[in-house]
Amino acid sequence: MPNGNNARRALTGVALLLCALACGPGRAESTPAPETVATQLREAALAGHSIAYSWVSELTTRFGPRPAGSPGEQQAAEWAAAKLKALGFDNVHIEPFALTGWVRGTESAALVAPSAQPLVVAALGESPPTAANGVEGDVVIFRSFQELAASRAPLAGKIAMVSQRMVRTQDGEGYGEAVAPRIDGPKEAAQRGAVAFLLRSVGTDSHRQAHTGTTRYVDAKVPVPSFALSNPDADQLERIVALGQIPRVHLYSSASYVAGTHSQNVVADLKGSTRSREVVLLGAHLDSWDQGTGALDDGTGTAIIVAAVKLMRDLPHRPQRTVRVVLYGAEEVAQPNAPFGDFGGNAYAAGHLSEMPLHVLAGESDLGADRVYTLAVPEAVAKGEFRQAAERVLRPLGVLPAPRAAEEGGADVDPLARAGVPLFSLNQDASRYFDLHHTPDDTLDKVDRAQLDQNVAAWAAFIWLAADGDVDFRSAAPQRSGS
Amino acid sequence: MPNGNNARRALTGVALLLCALACGPGRAESTPAPETVATQLREAALAGHSIAYSWVSELTTRFGPRPAGSPGEQQAAEWAAAKLKALGFDNVHIEPFALTGWVRGTESAALVAPSAQPLVVAALGESPPTAANGVEGDVVIFRSFQELAASRAPLAGKIAMVSQRMVRTQDGEGYGEAVAPRIDGPKEAAQRGAVAFLLRSVGTDSHRQAHTGTTRYVDAKVPVPSFALSNPDADQLERIVALGQIPRVHLYSSASYVAGTHSQNVVADLKGSTRSREVVLLGAHLDSWDQGTGALDDGTGTAIIVAAVKLMRDLPHRPQRTVRVVLYGAEEVAQPNAPFGDFGGNAYAAGHLSEMPLHVLAGESDLGADRVYTLAVPEAVAKGEFRQAAERVLRPLGVLPAPRAAEEGGADVDPLARAGVPLFSLNQDASRYFDLHHTPDDTLDKVDRAQLDQNVAAWAAFIWLAADGDVDFRSAAPQRSGS
Repeated sequence: MPNGNNARRALTGVALLLCALACGPGRAESTPAPETVATQLREAALAGHSIAYSWVSELTTRFGPRPAGSPGEQQAAEWAAAKLKALGFDNVHIEPFALTGWVRGTESAALVAPSAQPLVVAALGESPPTAANGVEGDVVIFRSFQELAASRAPLAGKIAMVSQRMVRTQDGEGYGEAVAPRIDGPKEAAQRGAVAFLLRSVGTDSHRQAHTGTTRYVDAKVPVPSFALSNPDADQLERIVALGQIPRVHLYSSASYVAGTHSQNVVADLKGSTRSREVVLLGAHLDSWDQGTGALDDGTGTAIIVAAVKLMRDLPHRPQRTVRVVLYGAEEVAQPNAPFGDFGGNAYAAGHLSEMPLHVLAGESDLGADRVYTLAVPEAVAKGEFRQAAERVLRPLGVLPAPRAAEEGGADVDPLARAGVPLFSLNQDASRYFDLHHTPDDTLDKVDRAQLDQNVAAWAAFIWLAADGDVDFRSAAPQRSGS
Repeated sequence: MPNGNNARRALTGVALLLCALACGPGRAESTPAPETVATQLREAALAGHSIAYSWVSELTTRFGPRPAGSPGEQQAAEWAAAKLKALGFDNVHIEPFALTGWVRGTESAALVAPSAQPLVVAALGESPPTAANGVEGDVVIFRSFQELAASRAPLAGKIAMVSQRMVRTQDGEGYGEAVAPRIDGPKEAAQRGAVAFLLRSVGTDSHRQAHTGTTRYVDAKVPVPSFALSNPDADQLERIVALGQIPRVHLYSSASYVAGTHSQNVVADLKGSTRSREVVLLGAHLDSWDQGTGALDDGTGTAIIVAAVKLMRDLPHRPQRTVRVVLYGAEEVAQPNAPFGDFGGNAYAAGHLSEMPLHVLAGESDLGADRVYTLAVPEAVAKGEFRQAAERVLRPLGVLPAPRAAEEGGADVDPLARAGVPLFSLNQDASRYFDLHHTPDDTLDKVDRAQLDQNVAAWAAFIWLAADGDVDFRSAAPQRSGS
């Protein structure tokens, strides 16, 4: 029953719950043991106190697609910064950087012989437009990228197509192999005189949706108009060839470029109590491809890390180290030697280079919203109490030790790793992710709320352990930092 | 080992297998008991001797989409007739009928306020084009058709949208309720001054694919430009409204009409031995919607009935009655009072009116390729030996008695029912069907070969029982026919 003594304890709901769990009466000012708090954060996330779903719902509904450098991406960044301030984050600010944008125009594809059939395609990222009346040619199908690269057949006037299939794996490794023709196919096609490049979509689904994505530039441009074809359409062209017929295809794209635009990173901190110069960095990207609304790539990643830190923010105490959320821009155009400007991961690392020794650990959430199933930690803590505590806290979530130490973290945190920052990885089940990746179907309805909350639980628990202490994650520790 | 005595037994593979099962040595000229043959046909289909998959693969690959009155539909009919002749069917011929075609043009939709987002739509069948610069309006969402029909709100200058959701059921009955706004929504919208009609897709999936289909005509036309919106896009507009914003949408379609074209029915018989004037009719439709390749709607239906009768054709004996396959045209434009010409079901019934008394039974396969799970027979044989035999033969396929007698058979055989022909129904599991129905995703990769063969097994077994005998399927039997 309410009375005067209880009035001073009228905190917000979540804070009260967490405090009740973690602090006990009269202990609001002291900090319990890290593993105790990590466990409580985990349970709070699973109990439905996470803001992750409402974050990704509002982000994807208000702004829809958020291509790099677009008004949608810029508005989403303004919204995110305002929201993070309202949620009580510290040091919230936007760090802009210049780039050239790419805008998908009208596009179409059709089989014109031996029969007239519409085809579902998506221009590959930064791909140049076709001529105004399109481009047409007989299609020559290569079963793999290797077969195209080894081919001596002249392709003048033809459309070169690679029909390599992606393998579905839990860890998403099938993507690495299947993406090779998307990266270098346009170059190989152009070198042989092909008028366009067609790619069986890099994806594990069988829907009439094409998976877009970037390719490698040659002399600062994608050398020929390049398109991904939906998997069922690629099957259809293969069957036409099997009937002894030659598929002839017409392609059209009015894609264009926008010079002099900008993208941006949004930075927000939960300031540490005693070692506040030391930063544990959590990354995800706000931009998305243009066909869907970027719910899983990477709206949920931004939601997971924001929600995890918001649960910490609602505690009556702070971790020793600063926890930093970076919502990166322009991740989808991340490319070695990209001619269109830098991307968020490089921009952050370059802009904060002097602070790298104080970045004690970094990780990225960018593989959808299905459950975390393994944890990878830096080699320096592969054995010992930190890892054991992390495994104790995460095992009830079904998270097991990863077979290897964390070496790669994703496009946005890899520049940090190159600057010496240790990485961790909360690896997600990617079995379904490449059904939807870079397609129009990357929309909110695909988000599994229970699995989303499991992610928040894993991130909140692990990050608390990493931030509320002085564990050194650097192997050789030459850059060991003090608070 | 081959020798001279075996040479005269060198029949084709399937015929040999079936004869070995059904005839025994020296009995090739006599006909075993119907239930024995029905069982053998069932087993032959399950053993992989069905041509169903190769039929639907070739049909959908060679011709792709086959809209009513299109060259694709006409060429598919020519191909089917040639194929049926080559397979040894009797009386193969094409029966053309006139109609006006409808051609989907370029179409697009986009949210223009409160933010710019692309939307996935498909114009509803026979829907008129928009003006050349499209049509734009604020969207007013009604949760159900009833809510629109009861509304007194003026909609001048608005886009009326019905966002009713379809229920997934095994028997497909959810379609009947959900399709109401597709049928009558355009009329209700137009009466209130709306500039266009938007419909949450009548479908059970959550993909960025819109489900097209026909609507009811008012004064011989669809009264306003009308579009289906993909389910995730409909969710998005609902969420925008829930945020307190008004979605404003731009729609464009360049759809057009083709006067003076034609569609056609393809007819092919397996002529009966002793009662050949009596016809058991199996129907399916060759035309398809234009977005996919009509694999499940209704390529597999044509494949199932052709393959079932081909298995009978390979027997050394014939059933007493004639078994007729009708591959209908223009089923997708079947409409009461359609202004664009008749459809195949009406054309066949009208053209064969004098033969109706000799059509002893009819059924249609037009609900995809998932397994048959119940059998419905005419009321006249609801009890008695015929039904018991049918159930004995079908039960090993998992086919159970339907709770009701067969009353409706589908758009193509219902005109036969109105002319007094008894109907049966081999009811398919429609749980997945409306995920794909009338979308770009109705393609060959969605066909489950094992379930397709189960359909062939059920059709071959049941049709043999119905055709090889003199069972009277007419309740009151006033039109009882003799051979």
